[in-house]
Amino acid sequence: MSISEEIKKKSLRYSIQSWSKQGNLNPVVAEKSDNIYYWDYEGNRYTDMSSQLVNMNLGHGNREIAAAIKKQADEFCFLSPAIAVKSRADLAEMIVKLLPDNFGKIFFTNAGADANENAIKIARLYTGRKKIFSRYRSYHGSSFGAGNLTGEPRRYPLEPGIPGFVKFFDPYVYQEKIKFASSKEAADFYVSKLREQIIYENPNDVAAIVMETITGSNGVIIPPDGYLQGVRAICDEFGIMMICDEVMAGFGRTGKMFAFEHWGIKPDLVTFAKGVTCGYTQLGGVGISSRIAEYFDDHFLSCGLTYSGHPLSCAAGVACVQYYQEHHVLDNVQKVGKVLGTILENLKEKHPCVGDVRYIGLFSAIELVKDKMTRKPLVDYGTDPKGIMASIIGQLKKKFFMTYSHENMLLVAPPLIITEVQLEEEMQKMDAVLSWVDAQYM
Amino acid sequence: MSISEEIKKKSLRYSIQSWSKQGNLNPVVAEKSDNIYYWDYEGNRYTDMSSQLVNMNLGHGNREIAAAIKKQADEFCFLSPAIAVKSRADLAEMIVKLLPDNFGKIFFTNAGADANENAIKIARLYTGRKKIFSRYRSYHGSSFGAGNLTGEPRRYPLEPGIPGFVKFFDPYVYQEKIKFASSKEAADFYVSKLREQIIYENPNDVAAIVMETITGSNGVIIPPDGYLQGVRAICDEFGIMMICDEVMAGFGRTGKMFAFEHWGIKPDLVTFAKGVTCGYTQLGGVGISSRIAEYFDDHFLSCGLTYSGHPLSCAAGVACVQYYQEHHVLDNVQKVGKVLGTILENLKEKHPCVGDVRYIGLFSAIELVKDKMTRKPLVDYGTDPKGIMASIIGQLKKKFFMTYSHENMLLVAPPLIITEVQLEEEMQKMDAVLSWVDAQYM
Repeated sequence: MSISEEIKKKSLRYSIQSWSKQGNLNPVVAEKSDNIYYWDYEGNRYTDMSSQLVNMNLGHGNREIAAAIKKQADEFCFLSPAIAVKSRADLAEMIVKLLPDNFGKIFFTNAGADANENAIKIARLYTGRKKIFSRYRSYHGSSFGAGNLTGEPRRYPLEPGIPGFVKFFDPYVYQEKIKFASSKEAADFYVSKLREQIIYENPNDVAAIVMETITGSNGVIIPPDGYLQGVRAICDEFGIMMICDEVMAGFGRTGKMFAFEHWGIKPDLVTFAKGVTCGYTQLGGVGISSRIAEYFDDHFLSCGLTYSGHPLSCAAGVACVQYYQEHHVLDNVQKVGKVLGTILENLKEKHPCVGDVRYIGLFSAIELVKDKMTRKPLVDYGTDPKGIMASIIGQLKKKFFMTYSHENMLLVAPPLIITEVQLEEEMQKMDAVLSWVDAQYM
Repeated sequence: MSISEEIKKKSLRYSIQSWSKQGNLNPVVAEKSDNIYYWDYEGNRYTDMSSQLVNMNLGHGNREIAAAIKKQADEFCFLSPAIAVKSRADLAEMIVKLLPDNFGKIFFTNAGADANENAIKIARLYTGRKKIFSRYRSYHGSSFGAGNLTGEPRRYPLEPGIPGFVKFFDPYVYQEKIKFASSKEAADFYVSKLREQIIYENPNDVAAIVMETITGSNGVIIPPDGYLQGVRAICDEFGIMMICDEVMAGFGRTGKMFAFEHWGIKPDLVTFAKGVTCGYTQLGGVGISSRIAEYFDDHFLSCGLTYSGHPLSCAAGVACVQYYQEHHVLDNVQKVGKVLGTILENLKEKHPCVGDVRYIGLFSAIELVKDKMTRKPLVDYGTDPKGIMASIIGQLKKKFFMTYSHENMLLVAPPLIITEVQLEEEMQKMDAVLSWVDAQYM
């Protein structure tokens, strides 16, 4: 048996795979990775067009991050959160300085889910209120707290849910029943409906509104101009904490360090993960406004975890943030992002199956429909009995274009270091597969 | 400003500390660590008598684990859980082989909290039932799911809790209102009360009973012989999944690889974290019985996280598990554990403030009382307004004996590589501090 077959067999026999039936898995067995590619043991090269799970913003094989991990491993790998260590102190300072000027401190976690868990706990402790608002088309993690924030079907196994978690609608303009005359009209509509719902739910008991600044896996839903400003105004009016989940959109994905910068607003709490270390080691965290942080000077912060601010992960984080800055990664996102936008608009024009394309920086989704006029999704919400989307992902995989789908959307979110040439090469494969979809399902 | 002062200042200014008021923190600033010690920048040597947060079972500066991390970092740091990689496949196999023969697969997480979150989700999905039983004196993590399993005050900020989470009493014999004639009588009592409670709650809706095999932070409560066997029998009777939380007790802490081995029972699900990598990198997981694992061959496993089976962490885990085995670490735990037991019994005899000592392997707690006869705790449950326990920890710290307290207990759980000589040297410091407690509070 080859080494590759041995790893695959062992993997299928002894480990259980996220979000799957286990019976018919056939994973790629990877041997190595570099830049936007990884290779199996047979030498096939796969292009990573989703940055794995939209976390490897700097791509594979980044030497600086690996070197920082190795250096820290030579010094020490772990000391508990109660002990002050250099990498944790440095990274906290760096992230606070990346955030708007109302931010004061960082609480570190292992990933995005526990970042969101702790953000809502902090909002509840600070406000003394219990209710938490979040949106239907959202994913915030799969632990009970983060999973109850989540609006999509990955929430269902966690129900009956936590009392006081309330859902509201996203500004999902493309599939809205009303057709808006302008972005402003759309923003006003969604903001006023949210305000109405908060009043019905008792604004004095609402601790926080939690949103992915830009909805990620659920379709790269970009808020219309004025929307986030409107939510900020509601929060100010009622003393509600505004929590922006920047786990996917943060750390350069959209061409800004944080996505909310596009609309000039200042949240009270920001959650981050993925891009802070690009997944080289696990790290997440909550950015906390100075006002909230000061409250905990003389109030007990009832949050904690063994690996809060893991020194090895913080060392990776320091190297990663330095890399974004020193290599002007955001400039590349803006430049190549424009090319991506043009390509996507062309695909929309060309293919009957493409209903909408949404993109900002290198964060994009292609929404597939049965009919451009009616905008009827290619697969119904929460169900795909014929496995249509899996077939499409399979077609892309045949061309070694690796990404994932969600509902009727294909995600395109390559590493932020991708070049125009690389992008164009890959998007030709997407073009071909969309022609196949047209032929197959239109 | 010295480098140490700079790190401390930065740390306090920009990062927020678990389980604390932030206003009066004064952390040690660590420069390096080795064996059972760490040092600050002034050269002071601190002895780690709690293995940090009972996770650094192999102590500090383990060369093999660090080398494995560095080697993996040279190959690749991360590939998503859907891709098969060697370190993940190898570690899953190794852990399944450490578990009893009814176990089939591993689901990897980042730490203990999300291991427990996923274990209860898996039990609910498998049984189709909703209710989850766990105990009052317990800590299972601080995310909403794990925190609702938790019985102690760190649960309170997460309430009102998740519907269907039910609490029962621990076999906390030392403080029980009834005095039992034997261990067997105690075991029978607690098992029969649990069975009675399950019947009242509807056994057909109970998915799982979750227990720390040995209660950890809440006082190293060791179950009387027959207790775990009795719980196993209840689970078998009603089709309830038995989940043993081995996050703290597992990976050699008690002198066996898993603590439940002391009583010869086979759980359905086992959660682990801490000792699997000794915290050198973050890793946790759920051991899943073959019967449950097979169910997910053709049923959707609605669990997942970006860093499930992080390749770098799995590489650390492989090295760590190999180290336990090749260096016969469990033999040392059993040998030095006996010495610890003798020392603790002597302290109990000598000091009026010591009500009880509980120990198994190198996992122990000293329970402090105001009065040996009445067993009245030195501080009341959930409150210590005079900061008595913090003063005692402060006295230990003055002698560079580093550990933590919980309620009226002092935890003693040094790295499993500690020698008899090292242990005796440190426990003399404990002896002196307990004399101080006698003088101060008796």
